[in-house]
Amino acid sequence: MQKTLQNFDHVRVVLVNTTQPGNIGGAARAMMNMGLSRLYLVQPEVFPSDRAVWRAAGASSVLDSAIVVDSFDEAVSDCHLVVGTSARERRIPWPLVDPRECSARILKEPEQSEVALVFGREHSGLTNDELQKCHLHVHIPSNPEYSSLNLCAAVQVLAYELRMHALNLAGELPIREEWDEPLAPNKSVDLMMEHLERAMTHSGFHDPENPRQTMTRLRRMINRIRPDESEIQILRGFLSSTEKNR
Amino acid sequence: MQKTLQNFDHVRVVLVNTTQPGNIGGAARAMMNMGLSRLYLVQPEVFPSDRAVWRAAGASSVLDSAIVVDSFDEAVSDCHLVVGTSARERRIPWPLVDPRECSARILKEPEQSEVALVFGREHSGLTNDELQKCHLHVHIPSNPEYSSLNLCAAVQVLAYELRMHALNLAGELPIREEWDEPLAPNKSVDLMMEHLERAMTHSGFHDPENPRQTMTRLRRMINRIRPDESEIQILRGFLSSTEKNR
Repeated sequence: MQKTLQNFDHVRVVLVNTTQPGNIGGAARAMMNMGLSRLYLVQPEVFPSDRAVWRAAGASSVLDSAIVVDSFDEAVSDCHLVVGTSARERRIPWPLVDPRECSARILKEPEQSEVALVFGREHSGLTNDELQKCHLHVHIPSNPEYSSLNLCAAVQVLAYELRMHALNLAGELPIREEWDEPLAPNKSVDLMMEHLERAMTHSGFHDPENPRQTMTRLRRMINRIRPDESEIQILRGFLSSTEKNR
Repeated sequence: MQKTLQNFDHVRVVLVNTTQPGNIGGAARAMMNMGLSRLYLVQPEVFPSDRAVWRAAGASSVLDSAIVVDSFDEAVSDCHLVVGTSARERRIPWPLVDPRECSARILKEPEQSEVALVFGREHSGLTNDELQKCHLHVHIPSNPEYSSLNLCAAVQVLAYELRMHALNLAGELPIREEWDEPLAPNKSVDLMMEHLERAMTHSGFHDPENPRQTMTRLRRMINRIRPDESEIQILRGFLSSTEKNR
């Protein structure tokens, strides 16, 4: 049963001390692409800025409604669950999840729970003090030899996982293919295979007295295709046309 | 059982007619972050460029080994599976997967299969002709009201899903928490709860003759914590210190 897609009104993205205004715009775009809209900026180096608007492309509404605050504490003070992105080399270990589990945790929160997804500085991430104010750390499992994700890329991955999890809960994943023609039932395929064998015999390519594995291989191939009705018609039309020659 | 992480040497990322050199750099970074290294560029507007190197950050080796070709056909001619990113509004429907299923399909390919993940132009994506040369279309399920992902963001999401799927196959997901202290067994928790009740009684806060639900609520709280041995010691140390007063 299809359910309504959960919205993310209770989730805010917090960017701490972002230095590149382009990254603020890129983060806004990544958020809006995935259905998130609430952006908090802790002492951004430059904001507002044309560069951010340019990188946000059509997502400038996220920038327009962004809330600029003076401190990490102010950005999360009314939150019930604070999740901090982390490169995973803390002195005191902290509860740690990957982005997939992170989304599950966030979408399992009770109603009225406010959630903050916090992203640190471009070069140094979150401080130990900030990380210790988080309930959870989330780590994007990147290549250990080159692990530092761009800020927007990190926002994109976490926002994408949130949307995927919500789609999953709503019964909208995996994507169901829309096809323009009904699949052919097995009977149509059987008839097509008979027609194919007749045509191949008629043309001299196939000898029913010495069939080897030709028909078996062709059947396996056609079964991999799982043809639709219009494909069967096209193929049989061609087969009929070959039978008229010779 | 832990298995080796699959590499992505058989997977190439193909960017068709990219106009912004920054996006080529961003894509290279996203790829390397997730362990991909083979980049093909079909008639990029500007390449090589300083902007691409700057956005690639430490991933310029991906740019250095990038292969520039003249056409889509040339980029995929030796591939066995060609996957094209699509905004999902084709006239003739095509086999369609989400990024998660896409990764599963790619990592299920037989050995020696060369795979191309193809990304279209920033503003117009892939042409119908190019899409019809793909075996699969992959669609990132974005917000229908604002669905156009930045090129690097799309590369990031698909590369991330590939890595997640490989980690999953290697038994490395979900991330296992490394904790610095052993968890307390239930017996330690029982003893701590008894200690807590004694200390609360001693301090006058708790009346064992009229306990109400205090101990039950505290036990539920402690069970949510699942304390480790050192936490139990800290808590009991504090409890002992309160018993010395009065």
